[in-house]
Order: sequence, then C-alpha cells, then structure tokens
Amino acid sequence: MARIAVVAGDGIGPEVVAQARKVLDAVLPGVQATEYDLGAARWHRTGEVLPDSVLTELAGHDAILLGAVGDPTVPPGVLERGLLLKLRFAFDQYVNLRPSRLWPGVAGPLGNVKPGEVDLVVVREGTEGLYAGAGGSLHRDTPAEVATEESLNTRHGVERVIRDAFARADRRERRKVTLVHKTNVLTHAGSLWARAFAAVAAEHPDVTTEYQHVDAAAMFLVTQPQRYDVVVTDNLFGDILTDIAAAVTGGIGLAASGCINPEGAYPSMFEPVHGSAPDIAGQGVADPVAAVLSVALLLEQLGHADAAARVNAAVAAELAGRTPGATLRTAEVGDRLAAHSVA
Amino acid sequence: MARIAVVAGDGIGPEVVAQARKVLDAVLPGVQATEYDLGAARWHRTGEVLPDSVLTELAGHDAILLGAVGDPTVPPGVLERGLLLKLRFAFDQYVNLRPSRLWPGVAGPLGNVKPGEVDLVVVREGTEGLYAGAGGSLHRDTPAEVATEESLNTRHGVERVIRDAFARADRRERRKVTLVHKTNVLTHAGSLWARAFAAVAAEHPDVTTEYQHVDAAAMFLVTQPQRYDVVVTDNLFGDILTDIAAAVTGGIGLAASGCINPEGAYPSMFEPVHGSAPDIAGQGVADPVAAVLSVALLLEQLGHADAAARVNAAVAAELAGRTPGATLRTAEVGDRLAAHSVA
Ligand SMILES: CC(C)[C@H](C(=O)O)[C@@H](O)C(=O)O
Ligand SMILES: CC(C)[C@H](C(=O)O)[C@@H](O)C(=O)O
Repeated sequence: MARIAVVAGDGIGPEVVAQARKVLDAVLPGVQATEYDLGAARWHRTGEVLPDSVLTELAGHDAILLGAVGDPTVPPGVLERGLLLKLRFAFDQYVNLRPSRLWPGVAGPLGNVKPGEVDLVVVREGTEGLYAGAGGSLHRDTPAEVATEESLNTRHGVERVIRDAFARADRRERRKVTLVHKTNVLTHAGSLWARAFAAVAAEHPDVTTEYQHVDAAAMFLVTQPQRYDVVVTDNLFGDILTDIAAAVTGGIGLAASGCINPEGAYPSMFEPVHGSAPDIAGQGVADPVAAVLSVALLLEQLGHADAAARVNAAVAAELAGRTPGATLRTAEVGDRLAAHSVA
Repeated sequence: MARIAVVAGDGIGPEVVAQARKVLDAVLPGVQATEYDLGAARWHRTGEVLPDSVLTELAGHDAILLGAVGDPTVPPGVLERGLLLKLRFAFDQYVNLRPSRLWPGVAGPLGNVKPGEVDLVVVREGTEGLYAGAGGSLHRDTPAEVATEESLNTRHGVERVIRDAFARADRRERRKVTLVHKTNVLTHAGSLWARAFAAVAAEHPDVTTEYQHVDAAAMFLVTQPQRYDVVVTDNLFGDILTDIAAAVTGGIGLAASGCINPEGAYPSMFEPVHGSAPDIAGQGVADPVAAVLSVALLLEQLGHADAAARVNAAVAAELAGRTPGATLRTAEVGDRLAAHSVA
C-alpha cells in the first residue's frame, strides 16, 4: 500500500490538504499517510526548517503531498531554499510538471479564449539553472557592492528533462513540444538547450517541435495560449511561464504541480501552486481544487491512472457546476470531490 | 538643431521608420537625420555588425532612432549581442523604458479591463544582470557539457535605475513604484535590489512602494494590470514583463521603448518593440504606431515635451478612430499621424 508523507504546512495549506486527503482516501482506500510538521510555524517555534532526520524519513515514502509553506514573517529564502528547493534538489525532482487547462465552467480573463481550448503542460526543469544557489556578493552595504547569481546547466540535466517532455508529448493528442529559452542573449546555456533539444527531437520524428524566446512565449501565452501542447523550459523561465499559464486559465487557485523524479529513485512531491495565502487562511473559503488536482498528478505518477482520471472527472464536474461569484466552502467542495471520485 | 542617427534596419524596420521620420520632421522641422546601414542585410553583405568607426559616429548624435534588426537567417546572438546589446552597453543606456497603455479604441485580450484603465511604465535595467555576457561552457557536445550564465549586479547599476524609477513616479499621478525580483530564490542579487530599493524609497516618502516576485508580477499583469504605475526590475525580468504588458495592452505592434542614458553622456536609443517581422515585410501593412510612439519618447528625452505630447495625442486620435479588423496602410497611418502632430 502506498505510503504518502503529508506536509500540510502554513496558511491555507492544512485546509486544502484535508480535502486532498479525503479524495485520496476515497480513491485509494488504505493509503498510509504520515504527517510532517514543516513550514513557517515550525521555524518560528524551533528554528528548524528541515532536519536531516526528517529528510531521511521523507525519503522512505512513495510520494509527498504538500499544502503550502511560507509566511510574510519569515525572511525571504529561508523556507524556499531550506525546504522547498532542498526537497526538489535532494530528491532529484528534475521534472517540475505544471499542467494548465481552461476547464468548462471557469471564466478565464481572456475574452477570445473559450473553455476547453487551452490544454497545455509545462515541463519545467527542477534541479538546475538559476536555482542552483550558485552566487554571492562582495562589499555588502557599500557603494562597491556586487552580487552575482549563476545559472548552471548540464547536458545531463537538460537532456533528461527534454526527454521527459517528448515522452509526454508522445502520449498526447497533438504531439507538439515547444522549447522556450533566450538563446539570443543567454548564448551558452541557450546553445546547450537548443542542441540537446534537437538531438532528442531527432529521436521523435512524430512530434512537432518549435522554439520561442521566453519573452515571445510570455506574450503568446496571453494572446494565443491554445497554441501550446507541451512546453519544456528551464527552471526560472518555467517559474514565470507557469504563473502566466495559470493566470490565463483561471488563476493559481486551480493550478496543480508535481515535482517528479521519474525514475522513482526518490519520492516525487505534489503541491498546489497557490501558496499559503495568509490573507484568507482559517476562514474555510480556500479553493481545494488545486490540491485535489495535485492528488491526481500523484496518483498518475504512482501508476493509478484510473483513479487519477476519476479525480479529474470529479473536478471537471465540480467546476462545470459552479456559479460565478458564489462563495465556496473548502470542506464542502472536498466532500463533493471525494464523493464523485469514488469509482 | 537635434542630430538624430537613424538605423532603419531589417524587415518592416524601414517601413515604420519612414513614418516615424515623417512625424519627427513635422514636429521638429530642421532636425538633422543621418542614416546608418546596420542589421542583417549588412551582415550578410559584408560580415560586419557594428564597425568601431560607426560606433564612434553614432556617439556624436543626440539620439538614435532604430526600426528593427534581425532575421531568421542570422544565427542567434550575432545581431543581438553585436549590435543591440552592444549599443545599450557602450552608450550606458541603463534605463530601458517601456510604457504600456491600453489606448481607447484598442481591443485588448482581457475581458474585464477597459481602455484607459492601464497606464504603466516598466523601468527595466539595461546594462547589467544576465545580459552582461558573463558565461561559458566546457566539454561542448559531450555528455559532460556544462554551460553557465552569470547575472552581474552592482550597487552602482541597481541604485541608479531605481532612482530613475522613483523620479518618474514623482512626476506621475499615482506615484507608486513596484519592485519586481525573485528575492526568495536569487537571494544575493535579490537582497542587493531590495536594500537599494529601500534606501531610495526612504528619500521619496510621497511614493507608495510594493514588492512582488517575478512570477506573481507576471500573473498580476494578466489579471490586474491596472494595479501598476511604475515597475522597476532587472534586465531579464524586464524583458519578459514588458512583453506581457504589451500583450495585455494590444500587442507589441503598439509598444514603444527607449534605451536611455539619462545623463546625456551618450545618445539614447528609441525603437519599437515589435522587431523585424519578416513575414509581413515589404507589404506596406505594418503598424507604424510603435515607431511613432518611440519618437514621442525621443522627443521627451531631448526636452521637447510639447512636441511629444502632440505626437501622443495624434496616436490617441488615430487609435480611437480605427475600425477593428480593418487593414491599415503603413504610409497612410504615417501621413495622418504627421498631419495631426503639427501644432
Ligand atoms: C516558492 C518558490 C521557491 C517557488 C519557485 O520559485 O519555484 C514557487 O514560485 C513555485 O513556482 O513553486
Ligand atoms: C532582441 C533582444 C536582444 C532584446 C532583449 O532581450 O532585450 C529584445 O527582446 C528586447 O526586449 O528589446
């Protein structure tokens, strides 16, 4: 039976994770869930972010379900570098998977894009680039201060995530992969990405390919999001593009993500993109859909494609039935989704 | 009398620049314009991108008006690094100014945003960051290949562009500056930007400030572009955010930009954001509005605020009078704008 580590975290994290667990229990009875107390609250209480002992315990699970960590009272970087990015890097989660669909019933911000027309997935590299933590500063707080950030890219790291993107495209209807980078300015990393992309593309003659600069892609995600199927890109570009993709498909309240180690050597991690949203925490009004869609990604990764499909169908029914502007209650949505997800 | 260097460039560059010059001649009679042949065509013909002698000649002008350079037949980076970025760096154009307005008469892609509601300007740093050209690679074309790109940030460079952003905010109605960075991941550069921002903000108590991570800003530019007044950010984030801002205000066909050396030690450069658009070049259907709005920025920089206001008013009238979907003729638009720009 699957062993899932649950990190509910801060803000609305515990509220949405409770619903995600209802759904998980409904579709995968007997799943073993262990809760881990990590995030801003623990850091405030104990000064600890991610003790080594916890990291070791997490490694023994099949997957991690994460709600949200973070709070304005914690200095920038502490939880991001110490917890989220630490897990992504320690567990070699090199595929940061972020699907975006404009679901029927959801009013997106784009006047000329209809529900059902957008169905894309961004395969964001998760273990390299500007997220490597390579950088420093000199002469801090003087007029001579200089600060650097270095983007590290390896053929190993770039090629494997591109391979994953093509494998996903092979399983989709449109079979198209768009590489996004900035080869005209970041010529060294850009050339590595472009050459690795061309090499993998040659092995997939049935997949259509295109290349776009990141600035053009940011624009086309707004003007023509329909054109994308699978998008593969580096860590930082992926961070930005997936928030745009979320925005044009109804907001991060609906956006799920998976930080995946495809080989299963380490646990993969699944989390809603929305973050802890301290402003609405504790009111029972957070939308649990993103957390529940993250459960669907988790199920798919663990080989339960049928269960994943049922969860997606339950979400589709839920969203199609919503009245625009109506207040939702987190727990009621969770109950409905759990009930509809049962076979 | 102002001496302007004109680089019409490639693709639709010459077509739109011809209209921009009509307008410039109309509002500033007697302006001395000298044409420089630079871009893809010259590179193909002579192998030259920007000879030192031309760089020296350009330095003797009050401003540069650029149409567009680039063509798919030129390898990525050649014209970008060798011409556009070379000019920005050689002429210390540290303020890359990109205003975005949703003009009355323009149908933007956002269903819930009305013309007149969006009026923001991005002050993008233009001489540092990942554009510094610091990077390299090892073991090219082997499985061991590694490629790096380094973001270089100095207190000098960061503080001066932030100062410029606050000075602009001081002259605007809403007096608000948003800093965009990624301080939670790019902690070294992020900290430098945040501390420089706080220091300059302390000197401007009348200016409202806020901070957003780049992924959040990319999202809010789509969902609530109205919230922004002045946005200050680094070179690469600015590249991406300005294309989103252009997209939500009717497309890069209307987006103007200025690469400005505020002290006037070197010429500033003004160009439409749209690029050479080889697919529609030579047909006389390119929209010259972005080039003409770039002339307005040029006029403002050279101290001709009245003339700039007249050009902006002519553009406003032109856009308000357009029939959605109607084909435009580049030269006719140029004639109308020139006629309306005269005092
Ligand atoms: C919180 C932050 C470190 C993270 C990232 O930048 O990857 C977040 O924005 C995300 O997209 O998951
Ligand atoms: C052409 C390219 C070098 C340039 C940039 O990245 O700055 C362009 O995208 C722009 O925004 O002016």
